[in-house]
Amino acid sequence: MSKFFSEKFADLIPYVPGEQPKDMKYIKLNTNESPFAPSTKAQEYALDAAKKLQLYPDPDCTELREKIASLYELDKDEIVIVNGSDEILNFAFMAYCDQKTPAAFADITYGFYPVYAKINKVPYVEIPLNENYEINVEDYIGINKTIFIANPNAPTGIALPLDQIERIISSNPNNIVVVDEAYVDFGAQSAVKLIRKYDNLLVTQTFSKSRSMAGARLGMGFANKKLIQDINTLRYSTNPYNINRMTMAAGIGTIEDNEYTIKNCKVIQENREWTIQELQKLGFTTLNSKANFVFTKNEKFSGEYLYKSLKAKGVLVRYFNKERLNQFLRITIGSIDEMKILINTLKTIMEESK
Amino acid sequence: MSKFFSEKFADLIPYVPGEQPKDMKYIKLNTNESPFAPSTKAQEYALDAAKKLQLYPDPDCTELREKIASLYELDKDEIVIVNGSDEILNFAFMAYCDQKTPAAFADITYGFYPVYAKINKVPYVEIPLNENYEINVEDYIGINKTIFIANPNAPTGIALPLDQIERIISSNPNNIVVVDEAYVDFGAQSAVKLIRKYDNLLVTQTFSKSRSMAGARLGMGFANKKLIQDINTLRYSTNPYNINRMTMAAGIGTIEDNEYTIKNCKVIQENREWTIQELQKLGFTTLNSKANFVFTKNEKFSGEYLYKSLKAKGVLVRYFNKERLNQFLRITIGSIDEMKILINTLKTIMEESK
Repeated sequence: MSKFFSEKFADLIPYVPGEQPKDMKYIKLNTNESPFAPSTKAQEYALDAAKKLQLYPDPDCTELREKIASLYELDKDEIVIVNGSDEILNFAFMAYCDQKTPAAFADITYGFYPVYAKINKVPYVEIPLNENYEINVEDYIGINKTIFIANPNAPTGIALPLDQIERIISSNPNNIVVVDEAYVDFGAQSAVKLIRKYDNLLVTQTFSKSRSMAGARLGMGFANKKLIQDINTLRYSTNPYNINRMTMAAGIGTIEDNEYTIKNCKVIQENREWTIQELQKLGFTTLNSKANFVFTKNEKFSGEYLYKSLKAKGVLVRYFNKERLNQFLRITIGSIDEMKILINTLKTIMEESK
Repeated sequence: MSKFFSEKFADLIPYVPGEQPKDMKYIKLNTNESPFAPSTKAQEYALDAAKKLQLYPDPDCTELREKIASLYELDKDEIVIVNGSDEILNFAFMAYCDQKTPAAFADITYGFYPVYAKINKVPYVEIPLNENYEINVEDYIGINKTIFIANPNAPTGIALPLDQIERIISSNPNNIVVVDEAYVDFGAQSAVKLIRKYDNLLVTQTFSKSRSMAGARLGMGFANKKLIQDINTLRYSTNPYNINRMTMAAGIGTIEDNEYTIKNCKVIQENREWTIQELQKLGFTTLNSKANFVFTKNEKFSGEYLYKSLKAKGVLVRYFNKERLNQFLRITIGSIDEMKILINTLKTIMEESK
């Protein structure tokens, strides 16, 4: 930190993304990426856009919003496009939290939430998950705070059913509820259909996981038009041209090719169930995942030992060195071949340690 | 605005980008874009990157920083990559301004500066340009404020020589001086070479203008390593994956193909001088531009009249409906064919109004 850095950020500790080591080629099951290439239509459209890079992109992302609106049966003014859903989560903390309105989120959830709270200088409370790593819905009823819920939650993978999400939204009519649906396409229920029923609901989604576009940085927010205007006020006051032409074009291609996304999500769900069963045969207990990852532990081996042993053998998974989490591994669900390598590598590690 | 929007932003008025009308095909001379396609190498690399969009980009942008470092003869840790230079300007307001440290910038300059000040809730002073629309350097000597200088300035196009920029930097050792060099490649002197001499200097540049990549959203900051760390602390606390794979790859291609950029900048400078002469023949007075645009006025016609007449005839230029600016047009320097159309259209307008 330089001596010029504003003291208001003196205690800011940035978010740490999953490691991307370059020392060898890994089976990468640590950042919840898709094992599938982006839609060929996305690639074609991106190439066309690359030829016109000298021109600014459309800051309103009109065509992309129209495509998404058509797919989701919404109005385009109920949608905002962002540079990855991280960007809109930060905007939501800016727009809907302040000294009078604290944020509230689970103690075990997306690790970026407390960072957003800190950089925006807003108070927050962390609500503990129960002993089964589940959100206790009662803890969120009528709490007069801006609520952030990842559904499915990360790193647990556990999803709340929509009626429970709706209970939280309807019981907090004076506060915004942000439902972060980064992983919703792998088997959970989306709250998008509720945005016309509740004026306090903001749903965020991403193209990074189910749509194979983590490398393109594309996220979206769904809400009634007034909330979308709030977010746009912040977007146009920080970085109006936040989405580049190639990403916008790739997003349009991906939405047009939605069958490809649906097919891929199905494969991930099948691979997830296969992986959970194979892990069980090896003595692992896995939380009930509706995401493209599983959170799993083995009573006989520490999370850290397994993480390090897997990494040494070229398989990268995510390990959280934190209370209540440090027994677990978070493993991305990749292709079936990758999952077979994972399982076989775990077998080898367990045999070698006998 | 929704009723949930934090009252701290109640009076926020977002930045308004240059218009992008879609009603007809225009000669677009209003947003300072390059008339040249991006480097073919940039396009090729972007296409390669588009095939791997399922994977997150490198949040450190290591390879791109290495390429830039090599071109600018710097260390890669003296460089930060951002989603357009708008992003780093906002970070600079966040990092280096607060209640104790106001911002200072010209009254006529990039219109986004006051918006950044307002969204970050920091006080600011606007220092008037002199009667010739120039920065009076004495006004910036030892002022104990975080200084933002666009050099060349916009919308005037006028540049300060490097020794004058250095006087401002050296006389404010306890404050950051941000030199916004979005337009520097068209004939002004860059302050990048001063970053090792002054620990209070942050230089920002962009790929949007000289490098034909406005549509890709790529900017960069140059400073000593501690300032770069400050910016990265904010970047990793808001949106670490701010640069997508395709843009990063296109940036690498563009840097590798730097001769193409140099050649294009030369053509723009030639076209600028041609345009200024032709405008003079039509009775226009043009400020001394070192940018890829000119700021010009005609005593016989109001700025608004010329802007509207040009637009009606399919030529889009920028008009600012603001005191001291409303007599002028800001005209982007495009290809020589575009500039000929501009001049001929102005001739027609002037003849028709006789």
